[in-house]
Amino acid sequence: MTTAVDITLLDLPNGEVNTEESVLDKYGYDEWTQEETSRTLPRAVVFAESIADVQAVLRFASEHQIAVVTQGSRTSIVNGSSALSDGIILSLARMNHIIDIQIENQLAIVEPGVLNGTLDEAARKFDYFYAPDPGSKPISTIGGNVATNAGGMSSLKYGTTKQAVLALKVVLASGELIEVGAPVLKNTAAYNLLDLFVGSEGTLGVIVEITVRLLPIPYGASVTGLATFNSMQDLTYAVQRIQASGLYPSMLEALNRVSIEALDQYENLDLGARGSQALLIFQLDVAVDGALEVAKQELQAAGAVKVDVTADVERTKEIIKIRQDVFKAGAQYGRLIVEDIAVPLGSLATVVARAEEIAEKYQQRLLLLGHAGDGNLHPDFILESTEGPIPAELDAAIAELLTYVISVGGTVSAEHGIGSLKKKWVDQQLSPAVVQLQKQIKQVFDPQGILNPERKV
Amino acid sequence: MTTAVDITLLDLPNGEVNTEESVLDKYGYDEWTQEETSRTLPRAVVFAESIADVQAVLRFASEHQIAVVTQGSRTSIVNGSSALSDGIILSLARMNHIIDIQIENQLAIVEPGVLNGTLDEAARKFDYFYAPDPGSKPISTIGGNVATNAGGMSSLKYGTTKQAVLALKVVLASGELIEVGAPVLKNTAAYNLLDLFVGSEGTLGVIVEITVRLLPIPYGASVTGLATFNSMQDLTYAVQRIQASGLYPSMLEALNRVSIEALDQYENLDLGARGSQALLIFQLDVAVDGALEVAKQELQAAGAVKVDVTADVERTKEIIKIRQDVFKAGAQYGRLIVEDIAVPLGSLATVVARAEEIAEKYQQRLLLLGHAGDGNLHPDFILESTEGPIPAELDAAIAELLTYVISVGGTVSAEHGIGSLKKKWVDQQLSPAVVQLQKQIKQVFDPQGILNPERKV
Repeated sequence: MTTAVDITLLDLPNGEVNTEESVLDKYGYDEWTQEETSRTLPRAVVFAESIADVQAVLRFASEHQIAVVTQGSRTSIVNGSSALSDGIILSLARMNHIIDIQIENQLAIVEPGVLNGTLDEAARKFDYFYAPDPGSKPISTIGGNVATNAGGMSSLKYGTTKQAVLALKVVLASGELIEVGAPVLKNTAAYNLLDLFVGSEGTLGVIVEITVRLLPIPYGASVTGLATFNSMQDLTYAVQRIQASGLYPSMLEALNRVSIEALDQYENLDLGARGSQALLIFQLDVAVDGALEVAKQELQAAGAVKVDVTADVERTKEIIKIRQDVFKAGAQYGRLIVEDIAVPLGSLATVVARAEEIAEKYQQRLLLLGHAGDGNLHPDFILESTEGPIPAELDAAIAELLTYVISVGGTVSAEHGIGSLKKKWVDQQLSPAVVQLQKQIKQVFDPQGILNPERKV
Repeated sequence: MTTAVDITLLDLPNGEVNTEESVLDKYGYDEWTQEETSRTLPRAVVFAESIADVQAVLRFASEHQIAVVTQGSRTSIVNGSSALSDGIILSLARMNHIIDIQIENQLAIVEPGVLNGTLDEAARKFDYFYAPDPGSKPISTIGGNVATNAGGMSSLKYGTTKQAVLALKVVLASGELIEVGAPVLKNTAAYNLLDLFVGSEGTLGVIVEITVRLLPIPYGASVTGLATFNSMQDLTYAVQRIQASGLYPSMLEALNRVSIEALDQYENLDLGARGSQALLIFQLDVAVDGALEVAKQELQAAGAVKVDVTADVERTKEIIKIRQDVFKAGAQYGRLIVEDIAVPLGSLATVVARAEEIAEKYQQRLLLLGHAGDGNLHPDFILESTEGPIPAELDAAIAELLTYVISVGGTVSAEHGIGSLKKKWVDQQLSPAVVQLQKQIKQVFDPQGILNPERKV
């Protein structure tokens, strides 16, 4: 797909078409993607500032059959929005306005470039919040979150991004603007095109306006805590017990021994004291009378060595920070090759054990952590070399792990999307008939194949 | 679409092909649909007992281009599963086994003919529950619930059916069996075909196995209550206040004066004492310390005349029964023409007022009730004649109401689907471009148009 058309013919009502080499270079790649990927320059970076700009880009791209890669703040870790040869990078980073917060309707309407954290902060001024909280919350855009159906720690209680999205404005490949969904909480008036666009990674249309649900900050006291265990197996058992108890925690985060050591070193803590092999960080954002005692009992019944619980705001922030810092802590040791799997809840213990075994077998260092409460783990392999291709042993370790995940009914991508890096695994996970249906859906929305081609499907 | 093929050539591995006239007559129409619809006999009623049966039916229907209407327990109120001329009725009512309850994975795997209430009861034996609770819970099937994305009272807190569905086995029009989704809580490995099938009303494939999430019964005490108001306006204000307070009620049901009178007569109650014009039924399934006082304050601040709260199990059942009986109570007066709208939460008061005005203008009796907490109302017009077409004045009243709902950004179908009866309204609600996309999606899954044709899209 290469055409000789002059990019300066692309005329935008509001935005900027930039062809400076330094800009093409910067916006041409996903800086958070740690795997080595072939690097190419786009033919232009378009900084859209309006829906009309996006329509102009897609009309131009359709006419001249040019690939369009939509970008938010470029935090993809699966090579989801790097440049494709001769393509256009369509940056929505400047479409970053909160259009409206309608508290009476419990919703916000935002442009796609608004940062997740910015929206959440704005909502909190009204005693509401925006629930989806990916680790990239301070720096990732709502548009990117929608495109990947981003999750996070609170998905356990409040669901992933798709549960927050009520309606979307989308520019189709042809440049036509459509609206899907409605600012209501129940809707069966149409096929669910809304949730088809959520998670479609820029391959079905360009999301230009997003209506999301805001939730009232829960009434009542919250409690937050840490528990340490002699093994990850004990920890997974504790996760099961706490969930079965009906406490509906808003956070159940697991960290293995390597994570604990990295954190102790990075933050000068002693989480690993007394040989703790596993750390559980938990929160009950609504702690009913007696909940704390139940939680402690369940943790102890599962073999918790130490349980440390607080209702203090400052101490809560410290505990949350521990979880938030784990990637930075791991990055002390080198490059993190981040996996993102989800497995049936009952398989969590065996998958954790298998991941550790595989790491040992292939002599890889494994930062194993994740949103244990919804069976979503991030097994992150540590590579000392900060550049270069992934060594054969690590490739083999990842292959063995993902094959096992698929064998237990799990998924190779839980909340980070497919991009280009996970495609071969998706083809293994899904049946040929489903892969075929996906290609037909793609064909309906993007008959020329100009929208983020070579990705997702 | 009529072919002369001999239906006795349809050979099933397990089920039954029935062509007795009494059976064709009984299964040929939706007995819960109150509007007069043209009545026709199917060419056969197939009682499938296995996935292989369903595959055989669809292969046969594809080969001979015969329409297939899939049926559960025939509770559609929008003429969603009545016979089409010369078509096959594919009843899944005998595929009614709970295949597995996997508490360790917090899920159940069921055949589509399992009743909602049966699944919920089975789950409760393990201290779990199945959250979606449509009014038809004791008699409607999980397959039908999935096909219409059924809601209910608890959707307010736990979402509609789509939030409970993790994976589906679907027989495509060709007879091919596919699986979409996975038994996990987060999944971005594919386009969201799962939620495309949910709510597709038998038009994209036949759902033959369903994996649903079960939730632990919440820990802690619940409280249930009634509050009466001098107007529906006060009631809607109370709904807003309770939600904003962060209490996360599991039920917020509104009933107007006609509903109250019908209930008082039907159940020999005195809900309408002291001239109460509106009744709110509410439940906090997790009542944190102090929640009850907050709820009472908010209700009183909104002008509640009387608030009656209980934690007693028997009294709770009585209160819930009041809400459950309202349709039966209304049916004392005649035939109920049930509408099913959802509007932005902030528009609830004006939509309620408009509905009452419209009823008065056209001299119609209006049983107005609904799941107020999620903006989902059922304005039900009472027709004294139990048969015959809808009178012109009622048609005009409905048209005025639905046009208004669309004008405020609402939807003409919240939780009951489209069937054939709502199609003209959907075409008014959706843009031509979205209608066109839906037809293209339909074309991908059902190129011959044999799956419940003339419905949904």
